[in-house]
Amino acid sequence: MDLINLFKERYSVRKFTAQKVEDEKIDLILQAGRLAPTAVNNQPQRIFVIKSDEAVAKLKNVTPYHFNASVVFLICYDTEKSWKNPFSGRDMGIVDASIVTTHMMLEVANLGLGATWVGYFDPKVVSETFELPENIVPVALLPVGYPDLAPSPRHAERLELKETVKYL
Amino acid sequence: MDLINLFKERYSVRKFTAQKVEDEKIDLILQAGRLAPTAVNNQPQRIFVIKSDEAVAKLKNVTPYHFNASVVFLICYDTEKSWKNPFSGRDMGIVDASIVTTHMMLEVANLGLGATWVGYFDPKVVSETFELPENIVPVALLPVGYPDLAPSPRHAERLELKETVKYL
Repeated sequence: MDLINLFKERYSVRKFTAQKVEDEKIDLILQAGRLAPTAVNNQPQRIFVIKSDEAVAKLKNVTPYHFNASVVFLICYDTEKSWKNPFSGRDMGIVDASIVTTHMMLEVANLGLGATWVGYFDPKVVSETFELPENIVPVALLPVGYPDLAPSPRHAERLELKETVKYL
Repeated sequence: MDLINLFKERYSVRKFTAQKVEDEKIDLILQAGRLAPTAVNNQPQRIFVIKSDEAVAKLKNVTPYHFNASVVFLICYDTEKSWKNPFSGRDMGIVDASIVTTHMMLEVANLGLGATWVGYFDPKVVSETFELPENIVPVALLPVGYPDLAPSPRHAERLELKETVKYL
């Protein structure tokens, strides 16, 4: 499988056509997240599918970056389920939610859909807007739709490996 | 591309054969990490390839879970490069390092190699052992090698979607 090519071709899609994402594709994206590994297999991810007109309207309180997507996934973790590093006390639910979101983002690209990982939001405003309980921590928004290819995809440049990698 | 199948077939490999991972495969795993998206494309990941006898010997101070892998990747982020959420102040470098590690973990599986994502370590001990500067925060260890298939792969069970997903 040419996974490296999928990594290369994937880009942040910020403009979508009016075509709705089919329910079967939404289900595949959710399955991709479901299959992600999490610390001690605790599976603390909690995912909200923002799809109804009412829920989509609320999104405008939360972020300008929903890009009129046909569906937006809100990926959170449950602090009552997540694993804590016993040495540092750090809640690793944020890592688990990130693994889950990465799986979902890659499946989106693999289905010929587009998405942008949105981290620019106030978690408190998200929690208030969607009435999340205190133990649910928002990590990422993933607006998904059919890419509108004009304007053409802009590939973000990456540093050379020597800038980020060191052999020990 | 049957990405869902890769997600399904991948499992945490905790026993490796003596066969060394080839340098070309190490490079592909690093390329997978290089191609990962990060917040504002800041690319704060800093990756240490623990491969020399000396470095591998030091690992024993850090974790019992290196599984005699032929190579171990230590994935960190640089707090001087990472993006901070302006609302919560949260350092999103941990999210970026997790996206990078997920890309690498999937490429490992795609190459027919095995890995286990190790989060059970004391970040302070890792920093001391490998003499990391203060701005470098360890997030994950990824021991990689050729899977020793006896004992047979144990697939971790996953919750049904209805346990973790809610439509809004």
